[in-house]
Amino acid sequence: MTVRVERLKINYKTLEEFKKFKEYGLQELSMLEDLEANIIENDSDSPFYGIYYGERLVARMSLYRVSREYNKYFEPATDYLELWKLEVLPDFQNQGFGTALVDFAKGFGLPIKTNARMQSKEFWLKQGFVPAHYDMERDLGENPLIWMPVGFSEKK
Amino acid sequence: MTVRVERLKINYKTLEEFKKFKEYGLQELSMLEDLEANIIENDSDSPFYGIYYGERLVARMSLYRVSREYNKYFEPATDYLELWKLEVLPDFQNQGFGTALVDFAKGFGLPIKTNARMQSKEFWLKQGFVPAHYDMERDLGENPLIWMPVGFSEKK
Repeated sequence: MTVRVERLKINYKTLEEFKKFKEYGLQELSMLEDLEANIIENDSDSPFYGIYYGERLVARMSLYRVSREYNKYFEPATDYLELWKLEVLPDFQNQGFGTALVDFAKGFGLPIKTNARMQSKEFWLKQGFVPAHYDMERDLGENPLIWMPVGFSEKK
Repeated sequence: MTVRVERLKINYKTLEEFKKFKEYGLQELSMLEDLEANIIENDSDSPFYGIYYGERLVARMSLYRVSREYNKYFEPATDYLELWKLEVLPDFQNQGFGTALVDFAKGFGLPIKTNARMQSKEFWLKQGFVPAHYDMERDLGENPLIWMPVGFSEKK
């Protein structure tokens, strides 16, 4: 089976699919409001990437490129990717969809940071992520896990 | 019943109590490592506040005062409190311990920001918190809910 990761368009169909995911939150509500108020156009690009199984969206994640001036995790100085809301619908778990999304993110060749649920820590370790050294002033309530391509290391 | 909120000391007893809470994460692991390596002293102040029921820690939260130079939520310019890991052990829920902790935080007279689980949104609304306008670049995977004392408003 070939798994294709695609960038999701913001439209009513996508936002309806999003309601099936547990991590539905203010971000999705804000996208819906902006669409209804015509602040954003139908089929605008979203920060979400997903995998369809037939017509159904079965896995998704959000990705945002953070500019190097805000980078507090990696050295040498670099833009990096923040990854959040990685989620696979229950019936489709353990079939490689989560790994396919993470591999897609790695494909940009930039370091990646995510804020992991501790229950999902094993998954992230398997993907080659490591816990960042916890720094309260920076991390507050987060559990930052990071992934670094060759040539990058954790900022000291 | 009088509920007393107290600032928690970092020691092996506190860190053992923390293991009963679901949101145990890198922050707690880092405190344990620092204690074991003598990087922090026994009974140092922690960012955690809690409520004891007899000898048992039954509720806790973490609070950190963010300097006004990093304030992206409130106006006029102000320090504010970041609140995270508010949690009441299952047997002690719905008895006012969560509200007691939030009231304690409000007592500092500063605006408060938290990153709410959507399942707990009702609780936060009852405490007078409101959803901040979602801004992807600032909020990424967060659901920011904010509380403002008289005289403060959300930053536009």
